[in-house]
Amino acid sequence: MQYSEMKREALLEEQVKLLKEFEALKRMNLKLDMSRGKPGADQLDLSMDLLKAVTEKEDCIAENGFDCRNYGVLDGMPECKALFAELLDVPTKNVIIGGTSSLNLMYDYIAQCMAKGVAGEKPWLMQGNVKFICNVPGYDRHFSICEYFGIEMINVPMTDEGVNIEKIRELVKDESVKGMFCVPKYSNPTGVTYTDENVRAIAALQPAAKDFRVVWDNAYIVHDLTDTPDQLLNIFEAAKEFGTEDHFVEFTSTSKISFPGAGVSAIAASDNNIAEIKERLNNETISYDKLNQLRHVRYFKNLDGIKAHMQKHAALIAPKFQAVLDGLEKEFSENRLASWTKPNGGYFISLDTTACSARRVGELCKELGVTLTTVGATYPYGKDPEDKNIRIAPSLPPVAELEKAVEVLCLCIKLATLENLV
Amino acid sequence: MQYSEMKREALLEEQVKLLKEFEALKRMNLKLDMSRGKPGADQLDLSMDLLKAVTEKEDCIAENGFDCRNYGVLDGMPECKALFAELLDVPTKNVIIGGTSSLNLMYDYIAQCMAKGVAGEKPWLMQGNVKFICNVPGYDRHFSICEYFGIEMINVPMTDEGVNIEKIRELVKDESVKGMFCVPKYSNPTGVTYTDENVRAIAALQPAAKDFRVVWDNAYIVHDLTDTPDQLLNIFEAAKEFGTEDHFVEFTSTSKISFPGAGVSAIAASDNNIAEIKERLNNETISYDKLNQLRHVRYFKNLDGIKAHMQKHAALIAPKFQAVLDGLEKEFSENRLASWTKPNGGYFISLDTTACSARRVGELCKELGVTLTTVGATYPYGKDPEDKNIRIAPSLPPVAELEKAVEVLCLCIKLATLENLV
Repeated sequence: MQYSEMKREALLEEQVKLLKEFEALKRMNLKLDMSRGKPGADQLDLSMDLLKAVTEKEDCIAENGFDCRNYGVLDGMPECKALFAELLDVPTKNVIIGGTSSLNLMYDYIAQCMAKGVAGEKPWLMQGNVKFICNVPGYDRHFSICEYFGIEMINVPMTDEGVNIEKIRELVKDESVKGMFCVPKYSNPTGVTYTDENVRAIAALQPAAKDFRVVWDNAYIVHDLTDTPDQLLNIFEAAKEFGTEDHFVEFTSTSKISFPGAGVSAIAASDNNIAEIKERLNNETISYDKLNQLRHVRYFKNLDGIKAHMQKHAALIAPKFQAVLDGLEKEFSENRLASWTKPNGGYFISLDTTACSARRVGELCKELGVTLTTVGATYPYGKDPEDKNIRIAPSLPPVAELEKAVEVLCLCIKLATLENLV
Repeated sequence: MQYSEMKREALLEEQVKLLKEFEALKRMNLKLDMSRGKPGADQLDLSMDLLKAVTEKEDCIAENGFDCRNYGVLDGMPECKALFAELLDVPTKNVIIGGTSSLNLMYDYIAQCMAKGVAGEKPWLMQGNVKFICNVPGYDRHFSICEYFGIEMINVPMTDEGVNIEKIRELVKDESVKGMFCVPKYSNPTGVTYTDENVRAIAALQPAAKDFRVVWDNAYIVHDLTDTPDQLLNIFEAAKEFGTEDHFVEFTSTSKISFPGAGVSAIAASDNNIAEIKERLNNETISYDKLNQLRHVRYFKNLDGIKAHMQKHAALIAPKFQAVLDGLEKEFSENRLASWTKPNGGYFISLDTTACSARRVGELCKELGVTLTTVGATYPYGKDPEDKNIRIAPSLPPVAELEKAVEVLCLCIKLATLENLV
């Protein structure tokens, strides 16, 4: 039954039927949340022993004998740097360990570019209007950093292979285009992993700006949902070929490995960028939380430990993704009222409405007690130019709640579409 | 025996005698460190139970039911805000909890002023040459933040009452003077606590700059060494009288209460400043480490708990301060080759040489294996204009080592003075 092929009377009948369903759901006073990429409580339970990994005095002493209860060691304990070097597949000297939040590290890096500049160039703030490429749909927190600092954002729609490299090649001819944010693996929200060709093309970019920087937010580096995970090309390996290592600053964290807000974050970057970041850090702090670094090293031990742990996460959230995909499939597989991504990892499913306003869908869902990520948030300035994208975050609610929430979402998409057609 | 009253021959004899002592000490291959305000290992042992305060799932749940293992709560858990509100004697709504480092919070605040501006005024970076008053001698980390951002620093020598308010009153008539750093209690390094009159006079300042801000670094707020601790007037109470609450942003942390680099930091500020800081924070991170906040609340419980804990710290470091003071007293009480402060708290003793180069003393100490805080570091740009100040940090070495280190220091001061006189 394609709405586009139905007569007005049939559409009205359908609308009446759905409105009755809507009223019935409304009476249920639902309170369901698919808005943020928060792990479920069962996922958090997986890491509880981490909190017991450093409780005695001897636990606080690092491999090199350093007492991690005291000041010092700006760039992280060697064993923690080694763990992240293995995770990020870079030399240990190119790693800096941060606090609990990689978002904080990214913000700090952009702040550094704004107020101090990059590679000896003038601070971005002193260069007049500076611009960032925003691959859309994308992560709202990246866009808000740009907005806060007054960086003009240019939308470039993502493709199935990653970023739209042709458009980006054109844009970087403009010297005022200073960089972009990328989530190269299981991109937020589309779940796309950049192909090797796409990564190589990004590495090969020759921007006009001498202070061009890509924030390579590898947030979902080991966040696989299937036994056939996506493989991401190492950006620094790719960049080596083109001598563009300085263009990239990579970030990751254990927020969705151990505990969001109580994990460990890290930077990987070229020698030049590490030096500039350390110069700043040297003025910013004395050291990050080394006891928390030790907790993570003691608990995970190495990359294999992290990978084994991530399989437990996958076992808990893969069924949630499946519940959403099943619900969408059931309602939309034949009528083309929506299209959506089927990611192999990460935290999101990206849905595009095809014949109705996503914003209207958000309003209707809200009426039924289902909270979606604010519609529009996946675009700079909160403005989805086609008003079609909805980010679904399935990780937090239990499967039964998710099934209900997807039922509501599908109903609202149909109703919003009918409002357009009738 | 006053060197100034001795004849050349007597001076030479004294010099020969001291050089022999110097050579004897050199053969001991000492390795003593009085350079940084690091707590001793015995002090760190005091807080070990804090690391056991949050290990089970139920420990992670806040009083309001929030699961602190997950994302959220930007400005800190209510019970942690309440603890710091009690400590700082301000309303809870005027508190923001940070990460492990108050230095980091201060840096971030200055970075915010540089790149975003204050109270609707242009960013400091866009206002041409901006200046900060630096109360000297002072904390090198404050000065390096200014230096990093290119803020011009103006030395204003401290007095026994606090800051030199007459000089400051003159300086703030210049619109480009944007603020100053203050360590109002047990000032680093002089140990001076600002008198009530001094605090009131600072609160009463009417600077030309509309975006004038004082970083009120209350690092040693409960770090008393005696039973008759200094009392500091609450800056916000004082400011209320003059309507200048917005001029002050206060910082503190548990770095020297629990663990340096693994404690909890906090900001106290006016409603206006809190709003500006939260706007930035909202772009900078999702939340700081709430599990560590809970560890601290569970362990210390309240201000009384913190105070009782600080008495244990005092019992460990007061004898160290005494050892330094005794050593100095023994050598210099009558000959006036140096003057020094006798603080009731904090982490430092400030020594001024009277007839020799402090830098030369540092060189001689280094030859004997005694590391002092880099001489000059207590002044902006590392330049002590009179080359006389030495910051002594007695907390880290055991008493026996300290006694030796002070013996070395005194010998080097005498030798450096003789080099000048002979």
